[in-house]
Amino acid sequence: MASAVRRLKGLVAATFTPMTTMSDLNLPVIQQYVDYLIEKQNVRNIFVNGTTGEGMSLSVQERKMLAEEWVKHAKNKMDSVMVHVGCLSLEDSKDLAAHAASCGADAISAVSPSFIKPSSQDALVMYLKEVAAAAPSLPFYYYHIPSLTGVRYQVFDLMGKMQKEIPSFRGVKFSDVNLMDFSLCIHNYKEFDLLYGVDEQLLGALACGAHGAVGSTYNYLGKTTYKMMAAFEKGDLLKAQELQHTIQKFMVYVFDMGWGLPEFKQIMSLNSGIDMGPARLPLLSSLQPEHHESVKSKLKQLNPL
Amino acid sequence: MASAVRRLKGLVAATFTPMTTMSDLNLPVIQQYVDYLIEKQNVRNIFVNGTTGEGMSLSVQERKMLAEEWVKHAKNKMDSVMVHVGCLSLEDSKDLAAHAASCGADAISAVSPSFIKPSSQDALVMYLKEVAAAAPSLPFYYYHIPSLTGVRYQVFDLMGKMQKEIPSFRGVKFSDVNLMDFSLCIHNYKEFDLLYGVDEQLLGALACGAHGAVGSTYNYLGKTTYKMMAAFEKGDLLKAQELQHTIQKFMVYVFDMGWGLPEFKQIMSLNSGIDMGPARLPLLSSLQPEHHESVKSKLKQLNPL
Amino acid sequence: MASAVRRLKGLVAATFTPMTTMSDLNLPVIQQYVDYLIEKQNVRNIFVNGTTGEGMSLSVQERKMLAEEWVKHAKNKMDSVMVHVGCLSLEDSKDLAAHAASCGADAISAVSPSFIKPSSQDALVMYLKEVAAAAPSLPFYYYHIPSLTGVRYQVFDLMGKMQKEIPSFRGVKFSDVNLMDFSLCIHNYKEFDLLYGVDEQLLGALACGAHGAVGSTYNYLGKTTYKMMAAFEKGDLLKAQELQHTIQKFMVYVFDMGWGLPEFKQIMSLNSGIDMGPARLPLLSSLQPEHHESVKSKLKQLNPL
Amino acid sequence: MASAVRRLKGLVAATFTPMTTMSDLNLPVIQQYVDYLIEKQNVRNIFVNGTTGEGMSLSVQERKMLAEEWVKHAKNKMDSVMVHVGCLSLEDSKDLAAHAASCGADAISAVSPSFIKPSSQDALVMYLKEVAAAAPSLPFYYYHIPSLTGVRYQVFDLMGKMQKEIPSFRGVKFSDVNLMDFSLCIHNYKEFDLLYGVDEQLLGALACGAHGAVGSTYNYLGKTTYKMMAAFEKGDLLKAQELQHTIQKFMVYVFDMGWGLPEFKQIMSLNSGIDMGPARLPLLSSLQPEHHESVKSKLKQLNPL
Repeated sequence: MASAVRRLKGLVAATFTPMTTMSDLNLPVIQQYVDYLIEKQNVRNIFVNGTTGEGMSLSVQERKMLAEEWVKHAKNKMDSVMVHVGCLSLEDSKDLAAHAASCGADAISAVSPSFIKPSSQDALVMYLKEVAAAAPSLPFYYYHIPSLTGVRYQVFDLMGKMQKEIPSFRGVKFSDVNLMDFSLCIHNYKEFDLLYGVDEQLLGALACGAHGAVGSTYNYLGKTTYKMMAAFEKGDLLKAQELQHTIQKFMVYVFDMGWGLPEFKQIMSLNSGIDMGPARLPLLSSLQPEHHESVKSKLKQLNPL
Repeated sequence: MASAVRRLKGLVAATFTPMTTMSDLNLPVIQQYVDYLIEKQNVRNIFVNGTTGEGMSLSVQERKMLAEEWVKHAKNKMDSVMVHVGCLSLEDSKDLAAHAASCGADAISAVSPSFIKPSSQDALVMYLKEVAAAAPSLPFYYYHIPSLTGVRYQVFDLMGKMQKEIPSFRGVKFSDVNLMDFSLCIHNYKEFDLLYGVDEQLLGALACGAHGAVGSTYNYLGKTTYKMMAAFEKGDLLKAQELQHTIQKFMVYVFDMGWGLPEFKQIMSLNSGIDMGPARLPLLSSLQPEHHESVKSKLKQLNPL
Repeated sequence: MASAVRRLKGLVAATFTPMTTMSDLNLPVIQQYVDYLIEKQNVRNIFVNGTTGEGMSLSVQERKMLAEEWVKHAKNKMDSVMVHVGCLSLEDSKDLAAHAASCGADAISAVSPSFIKPSSQDALVMYLKEVAAAAPSLPFYYYHIPSLTGVRYQVFDLMGKMQKEIPSFRGVKFSDVNLMDFSLCIHNYKEFDLLYGVDEQLLGALACGAHGAVGSTYNYLGKTTYKMMAAFEKGDLLKAQELQHTIQKFMVYVFDMGWGLPEFKQIMSLNSGIDMGPARLPLLSSLQPEHHESVKSKLKQLNPL
Repeated sequence: MASAVRRLKGLVAATFTPMTTMSDLNLPVIQQYVDYLIEKQNVRNIFVNGTTGEGMSLSVQERKMLAEEWVKHAKNKMDSVMVHVGCLSLEDSKDLAAHAASCGADAISAVSPSFIKPSSQDALVMYLKEVAAAAPSLPFYYYHIPSLTGVRYQVFDLMGKMQKEIPSFRGVKFSDVNLMDFSLCIHNYKEFDLLYGVDEQLLGALACGAHGAVGSTYNYLGKTTYKMMAAFEKGDLLKAQELQHTIQKFMVYVFDMGWGLPEFKQIMSLNSGIDMGPARLPLLSSLQPEHHESVKSKLKQLNPL
């Protein structure tokens, strides 16, 4: 089975889910969104229905409609579409995995259930195995994000079990700051893709050998991040640090305002010119119209492409 | 609107979900389960599809089937059926709430979304308001369980907002050890039902004025707990402490074995004689056949009715 | 060895440490403080150099001077003086324990080291054993406050070891919300004193059989709390709840202002008329002169004795 | 004021404290320890009385004796001796700071108090300012280790205040995994030294521009780490990753055995041939004589110098 990520050698944008209202999807703008990512950010891979996309806040039916739409427009234009199929319910995850395969996705990924947490590492791997088996032809990526799931098993401890139990296992979306765990995976399991998910410290992960990155900032700072990766590759560390700092300045700006995911979504609208609509409940944005100009100029200033 | 709980003045068993295999429901035993609760435990109220029932691990369709079956068999036999409709997705929760009303449930309850957490107290109340509004004729109970959701807003801070925004708001299933928060709710919002959810310290909550209790131990220790409540009511504190200690000894036994929800489910089978089947992934039981006799004799010894 | 606490059957005020400046002790007001506690609060037991007294922020020499002064003025007036001797350094703790015995204290207590945490339960008990052995004639009380130490061993798991290893072990100052752990200690180790330390939910602990209470609110709300205990003893639960609510209203007022220990210390000055001076660094009070009148009237209103 | 660390451009070993028994210091072996670090590990800077040295478990008097002995033997042989003077008590910290200056230390460092935590960022900086002012001629380094202190203020938020308030402020010992915070400090406060303290992910910190590193593994893996730093400097990333992996393999070995600080101390004895003695209570080692050979061969295998 081919690896989805090695093929890309690059950045994966975790996409926002476009809405018209807090409850209604805005599927028609997805085509425009795909074109924007390619043209403005040079990003050719997407991670759909993940945390950024509020996948967990959507119904199974909505997630299927979104997956179909993203695949339809990204096919032949982008390198890959990875669909996040993680849910609290195994049945729902299997349903979404099978659907992803049927609609032409390139890979699937799943987070651990987090309300009722796995009894053990073995129970988690058994769960993931069933999800993956519902789409046996698609590369499977475990999505590790302990700050949201509270499931804190070191990925290094899971790798051997996932390799053994899950034939389609191909890698990990690793959204954590523990770079020892990340490095141990890379060093000891060389045939798998380790994609880093904490955008603001990607440079540290590159030094550890990261194979790629998945994150929401690549929606607006994709080109800047590619430049950082190129500088790092060429050994120009000072320039790489400078560019990493660009992303960090943006994060500091957002965090200092007390903002989070719903505001990131609005910022995406302001930056791309595509109306993403509001986030869904239980998210509410506190970004007000009077902030719009400063947000736009902040991103322009950070992103002088 | 009548209160579901004041009517009951008593214990609510958080029911397990009977399965034949790890993926298939066993609906036919529900009738027997209802009879067991009434006859053996004197319990006449149930909380369906909650944490004990692995509600979050079920699909929307499965939760509907279960709610229907529980209502069907409890009607005219029990005092009330409260259906938990909390999900990560607001759409799913609304769907379940409307279904609960249509199938004849007596009340609904919902937990906060926990993967994507509410932006603010207001966002959480707005979310709960929409859930409740999908079943406006049913009393609505907020389910507070911060150890699982990570949503740590004090309930006291939410009460006023819920009272104002949610016409059908009637109370809280309060599963936390913070008795100051619990007491503040009771004392300042006298018209609402505060149901305590940490079985092993219910006696402390009774002293604070708890109106009732919801929990999984009432599946096997319901009668014992009723005795404790009666002793407390009569002012026989030493006897109440002794009976509370019965539940604690059971919890210590289970925790010392390293057990949790999947093992509790098996213990329920052993105690009731009704086959609950296994828990669902990501839960796996480590209770082995060689433990069966000791579990049974432990419960018999604790429960000398 | 006599128990310090059974003798008292009552409340223990965790005393503030009077200062003239942020670095200088104000020993002369201690006599007045003792008289205030007896006359205004009916409190006849004190816990010296604990968390409220910023014991950990003082040097060993300062703690000795304070212990001597408190013992000197409380002798023959109060029922008991318990000196907290916990430190990060075992040598310092032993030094303080021996000093407490030499200056006439009635009991000692020690918290677990918290920066370098115990390797195991056995290591903790071995540590406490050495502290206690430095004052073998004084009853020893383990001070459990996991929210500050991060040392989360259940006390129930330590009780048997402490009973076996520490001849002078007499009980626990239990400052945590886990009432199952607290109840298990009371029920299974009847010869030891279990003193509750979360003032705002003492009523719940009384229902579990608490033998007494240690806390800082007894500096201003001692009489009110005694009334609550008396009401509970007489079976007048509604009155007990009402009085417990008095303490809770005070806590809510303080927490809503964003206040903590340094502000509690100022409030003590305002209430008692004895100048406690400022807290020590790293504490800084944000209570301003313009709050003084409202604080005073708040306490007056809560404490209508 | 000269910076202690820029002068070194290298590794700082956080030293263990040699003991003869669990209570008695073994000062005479310090000379040998200094020579070992220089000759076997190429390490010419030390951090004394820190976490590794169990500084918090020592009395003030013991810390002074140790500081004197380390300075005496390192003078003229090593590049710098940084003495950790952090305590829970400001008076003790000031005493230790003044002593460090008087005995010839090159720099001081202090952790935040952690039992009674700072009221605010300003309170913390005011505390540190007083510590630093007790040794105004010595460069001052803030020691950030939130996993042990629970004090989680981002260092980036403190930098400006420390720069403004503390004339001798020169940098930070940064023992945390948040590389965004670390990078922001480096990028925005270029005149200060940012020394990384999580040995097992130093490579990531180097990519972010770390000026040096302080840690306990440099006691046994100093030469290996210098090789890693040299490889990174030359742009040989694969070799640097391989060498970083050496340290990680050692950590995995130790953690898999359930070991921590007391066992690291014994491992140091086995590796250096210098008897470090036991750790102090509340630490107890579980490393048994039968492990000795495997520990020695593990380190030999990792450290093929």
